Amino acid sequence: MKQIVIHAEKDLRIEEQEEAAPGPGEVAISMAAGGICGSDLHYYNHGGIGDTIRLREPMILGHEVSGYISALGQGVSGLQEGDLVAVSPSRPCGQCKYSQKGLHNHCMNMRFYGSAMPFPHIQGAFRQHLIADASQCVKATGLSAGEAAMAEPLAVCLHAARRAGELLGKSVLITGSGPIGALCVLAAKAAGATEIVVTDISDAPLAYAQTVGATRTHNTMANPDALSAYTADKGHFDVLFECSGAAPALAAAVPALAPRAIIMQLGLGGDMTLPVQAMTAKELELRGSFRFHEEFATAVQLMQSGMVDVKPLISHTFKLEDAVEAFETASDRTQSMKAQIMFS
Amino acid sequence: MKQIVIHAEKDLRIEEQEEAAPGPGEVAISMAAGGICGSDLHYYNHGGIGDTIRLREPMILGHEVSGYISALGQGVSGLQEGDLVAVSPSRPCGQCKYSQKGLHNHCMNMRFYGSAMPFPHIQGAFRQHLIADASQCVKATGLSAGEAAMAEPLAVCLHAARRAGELLGKSVLITGSGPIGALCVLAAKAAGATEIVVTDISDAPLAYAQTVGATRTHNTMANPDALSAYTADKGHFDVLFECSGAAPALAAAVPALAPRAIIMQLGLGGDMTLPVQAMTAKELELRGSFRFHEEFATAVQLMQSGMVDVKPLISHTFKLEDAVEAFETASDRTQSMKAQIMFS
Amino acid sequence: MKQIVIHAEKDLRIEEQEEAAPGPGEVAISMAAGGICGSDLHYYNHGGIGDTIRLREPMILGHEVSGYISALGQGVSGLQEGDLVAVSPSRPCGQCKYSQKGLHNHCMNMRFYGSAMPFPHIQGAFRQHLIADASQCVKATGLSAGEAAMAEPLAVCLHAARRAGELLGKSVLITGSGPIGALCVLAAKAAGATEIVVTDISDAPLAYAQTVGATRTHNTMANPDALSAYTADKGHFDVLFECSGAAPALAAAVPALAPRAIIMQLGLGGDMTLPVQAMTAKELELRGSFRFHEEFATAVQLMQSGMVDVKPLISHTFKLEDAVEAFETASDRTQSMKAQIMFS
Amino acid sequence: MKQIVIHAEKDLRIEEQEEAAPGPGEVAISMAAGGICGSDLHYYNHGGIGDTIRLREPMILGHEVSGYISALGQGVSGLQEGDLVAVSPSRPCGQCKYSQKGLHNHCMNMRFYGSAMPFPHIQGAFRQHLIADASQCVKATGLSAGEAAMAEPLAVCLHAARRAGELLGKSVLITGSGPIGALCVLAAKAAGATEIVVTDISDAPLAYAQTVGATRTHNTMANPDALSAYTADKGHFDVLFECSGAAPALAAAVPALAPRAIIMQLGLGGDMTLPVQAMTAKELELRGSFRFHEEFATAVQLMQSGMVDVKPLISHTFKLEDAVEAFETASDRTQSMKAQIMFS
Repeated sequence: MKQIVIHAEKDLRIEEQEEAAPGPGEVAISMAAGGICGSDLHYYNHGGIGDTIRLREPMILGHEVSGYISALGQGVSGLQEGDLVAVSPSRPCGQCKYSQKGLHNHCMNMRFYGSAMPFPHIQGAFRQHLIADASQCVKATGLSAGEAAMAEPLAVCLHAARRAGELLGKSVLITGSGPIGALCVLAAKAAGATEIVVTDISDAPLAYAQTVGATRTHNTMANPDALSAYTADKGHFDVLFECSGAAPALAAAVPALAPRAIIMQLGLGGDMTLPVQAMTAKELELRGSFRFHEEFATAVQLMQSGMVDVKPLISHTFKLEDAVEAFETASDRTQSMKAQIMFS
Repeated sequence: MKQIVIHAEKDLRIEEQEEAAPGPGEVAISMAAGGICGSDLHYYNHGGIGDTIRLREPMILGHEVSGYISALGQGVSGLQEGDLVAVSPSRPCGQCKYSQKGLHNHCMNMRFYGSAMPFPHIQGAFRQHLIADASQCVKATGLSAGEAAMAEPLAVCLHAARRAGELLGKSVLITGSGPIGALCVLAAKAAGATEIVVTDISDAPLAYAQTVGATRTHNTMANPDALSAYTADKGHFDVLFECSGAAPALAAAVPALAPRAIIMQLGLGGDMTLPVQAMTAKELELRGSFRFHEEFATAVQLMQSGMVDVKPLISHTFKLEDAVEAFETASDRTQSMKAQIMFS
Repeated sequence: MKQIVIHAEKDLRIEEQEEAAPGPGEVAISMAAGGICGSDLHYYNHGGIGDTIRLREPMILGHEVSGYISALGQGVSGLQEGDLVAVSPSRPCGQCKYSQKGLHNHCMNMRFYGSAMPFPHIQGAFRQHLIADASQCVKATGLSAGEAAMAEPLAVCLHAARRAGELLGKSVLITGSGPIGALCVLAAKAAGATEIVVTDISDAPLAYAQTVGATRTHNTMANPDALSAYTADKGHFDVLFECSGAAPALAAAVPALAPRAIIMQLGLGGDMTLPVQAMTAKELELRGSFRFHEEFATAVQLMQSGMVDVKPLISHTFKLEDAVEAFETASDRTQSMKAQIMFS
Repeated sequence: MKQIVIHAEKDLRIEEQEEAAPGPGEVAISMAAGGICGSDLHYYNHGGIGDTIRLREPMILGHEVSGYISALGQGVSGLQEGDLVAVSPSRPCGQCKYSQKGLHNHCMNMRFYGSAMPFPHIQGAFRQHLIADASQCVKATGLSAGEAAMAEPLAVCLHAARRAGELLGKSVLITGSGPIGALCVLAAKAAGATEIVVTDISDAPLAYAQTVGATRTHNTMANPDALSAYTADKGHFDVLFECSGAAPALAAAVPALAPRAIIMQLGLGGDMTLPVQAMTAKELELRGSFRFHEEFATAVQLMQSGMVDVKPLISHTFKLEDAVEAFETASDRTQSMKAQIMFS
């Protein structure tokens, strides 16, 4: 079987590997689709993420994946050969003190697919054949393989939406309209937000946000003052999903947020210089949101029920052998929203 | 102008009254539609609600209403003659200690339309012409008058849904499929619940629940054991909206609720004998939910955006002169879901 | 070594048993003190609790215990021979779905000391020698053995106090002034409540509540109307700790609770007939509170820091050989608050 | 009567003014004690706070005050001549949309004593005679005038402690040991925190923190690495009260905070460069906390009950005529904790 391995910055290779057999509680999966995420792009374009997370050995990329069950290990129930499944990359230990508090996304021994944070690195899931725990697999009957592979980034946004508290009838601002920002539009809409305004510094991503249900979009490069329309009476929005990781985006949003508004911080952009005095006077709450766990199954359910439709966000689909082109395309946000690779 | 006045049990009259002019901050409304609520039916069928709330003078009924602005008082902005508006019956004083805490539904001087709780009674809104505060009116452009009149009971359910906390991906049980139960289906769906099971002791109301999106319905008269399918692993549902006011409905639901599940109690049925020991051992939370305030505007927005469609629940529409027939029909839940009266 | 075994109603025996050695991760404990709890009394006086929990084999009683480490199993660190420890009876599996959510008190395989709920029954801790997991033991340096044995019922109350949300400056009502009610006084005070009113139907327990810090106490047998002083403006108290399990106590409290007040239900009294309509109109929240888990260590810390002083509540101390007398005394709440047995 | 008026940077004058009589609902107060706050010091030392809040006319300083009722206006009940009262400087309008939501500290028309934010400025309360609304006055029987004047800064800390959620048994870190940091020690202790660690860059303030109950203190100037002792297992503290307004203090604390820890931001220091990526990965929550409202009465109650003892923090007491010396002393945090002025 083939797999997509990053060796160093811009050195992405398709390599052959033997297939393994599933052990007890495991399944073998014939992989179908894999979406390219921002962290995959960091490994591809920069050989790591920031100064601290660096590639120190070859690593299979990928953690937004789906596939078809090809074999069942001993004791597996509830799944059958041929089932399309979304495969969760979240693999907490279940034993550490955070797992035992139910905070699995903070597991001290997390083995999240395709991460160079620990060493040896945790190998990813961009491969034609994968052995996974049955508990990672959520049946995705009725979805396309591409949709099923969107469960992962959607789960990131559902986790943030849940941590934001109830959103019924709320006004939501989203800064940054990449895949996470656009999926936050869908998550906020599914949770009942009645107004969803999205900003970005580029028109192309905003068009996607509009397509999936944004009430209004603003290009803050073209119109740096766009949010001043929302600053009357101490500010308008109840919740901000900050998906850009860019300090100016968050700073520009602060005057448009109502007192006690909640900022869900999803964007990862290193240190940020923030107007903390204004945030304090308004009693804003900035809540970090990192990955997900139980929301993965919810993501599949929401797509199956039709409450969330991610299809308009899958902008490109590549063959496995065109992986390099896929990564190049995914790196250009003026043309790509979510690029996926089909493994077979 | 005509108005619908209850004098005593089964003594409902259509009476003439002079029209008034709007004062400062007020508007005159040419009333369009009015939905008959359970409390209206109590006054009609029993002359009061329980032992303590009794008719002591003639009272105009009705609090689920909409109409068209016919004149603006001094200083009113944001509304125009001809605008269709949903009219909120929630009229807190704004001054008492609960208003000043933002708990307007607990206002000590509440003047909710059509209530015999205080004396003199608070006259209701089933009339052809109404003077209201502009702040009670929510523009309902794009809705029918009948939909706009549904803002009130929908707001009751949105208030309960918000008090239940976030519902994204949650499993919801609803006991009692009258108008409030059926609207709770819509509220739970709008808030992202992925499974909504409804019980009732009659098939007709359950059919409505199905129409507006229930995942499954159970007639617990026909099948008293229906909820035993949900009791594995200490119980299945995350949230119960109890809309029947019937102790057996709540008691039967307890084994089907997961530990830490939330019970939103909307049904009003006097004293109830409850399995408090089992509820305590599971650490269930029973939260009363009473009326609404800011959710009234949210109700209109959710209908306007298409996120909530109440039209299938409006089962009957009567002319003003057929008010008695309207009340008789509304009293028969095997044929009626929501009966409305058109005032012009 | 000796242990206290219940065979049937009023058939309590002191029996001999061989001592065991600690395995890996375990410790041997020379037991010091054990408090008699309401559930112990139920087994002693009635042979079970209600209709469903019945003694089906002899069972060692007791779950409020402390002792001195006498031997360490392999791999145990942080404890030394001679250490006084409070021993938590909460033994969740760590693996079931509730454990993995951090809801250890809802563990599906809980092995709580001295419980006839599962069969075979879970043997208790009233014995001279106990093998326990090191993780159950909390070092209680600076406390007496009797105080350390109070960690368990105190943890029950801390769990309820935490589930009530923040209590700083709040007004608290406590119905039922047995050991749990009296410890709730201490828990509420430690959490910053500024007013703590306690009711009971007997004077003796109320005197204890007063001793540990109640602001005021009321004998509602002598003065059934006592709480009417707190009903102005829709009610006075922010939080009720219901520790009686008696429906009349809860019902009498409802008019004295402010809108949105929280009722922490600790008392276990089977079915209760409650004024649900009034509770709903006030939007009260009744939250079950059952056992504890992480609060056990907190209980020890609060006693060690002097923030909670349970000593005034230990009303009687008996020798092991006087166990029957201890149980008889503990059964008489007009003379006993907390009776403890010393095992050596 | 005399009052303390700031005219410009370092231009503080004691001026004469006629006394007024109380109108309906008002009281006249013979002022007793006034504490000098950081904002008073900014006006004195810099003529304003940052670039935006500048003195544009002479302004009476002061908002931490107490006094004795000297006359009652019409309709005032519950207060008597001679009563010692703490006087709240929080004067929201009660009408604006935030007041009507119960968010009085975000009132759009707030008239907080001694603030140059609006123009005309809101005159302060450092004067011998004050007319105030009766509703601003909290009877402080049993306290000294100096303690009563501490109700205001204590209320700031209680507001933050309440917004932090329940603290029973929690581990708390406090960065910045000025008056607000030291009062946060007392607030956290009153709310049940069992571990309270305080950092500052100076020894003198830390000694005060120790006196009022800090478990441990660290001078991070002398030992920049002090918090590395708390970074094992992803971090130790549940809650941080950030009282320094200094970005390095907050940044240094982040590795010592447990996942999901809450940061209460009280310090006001303009823009801050924060490690947002690390905060996001840990899902920390940074919550602004600004002023207070209902917590003012709670502050008085907690002092009256003995649960909070602020006396050790009143480091200096000056006569009115020594106001300039008082301000100079208060400006030197190596010698002063809280300096107060006695008005008579």
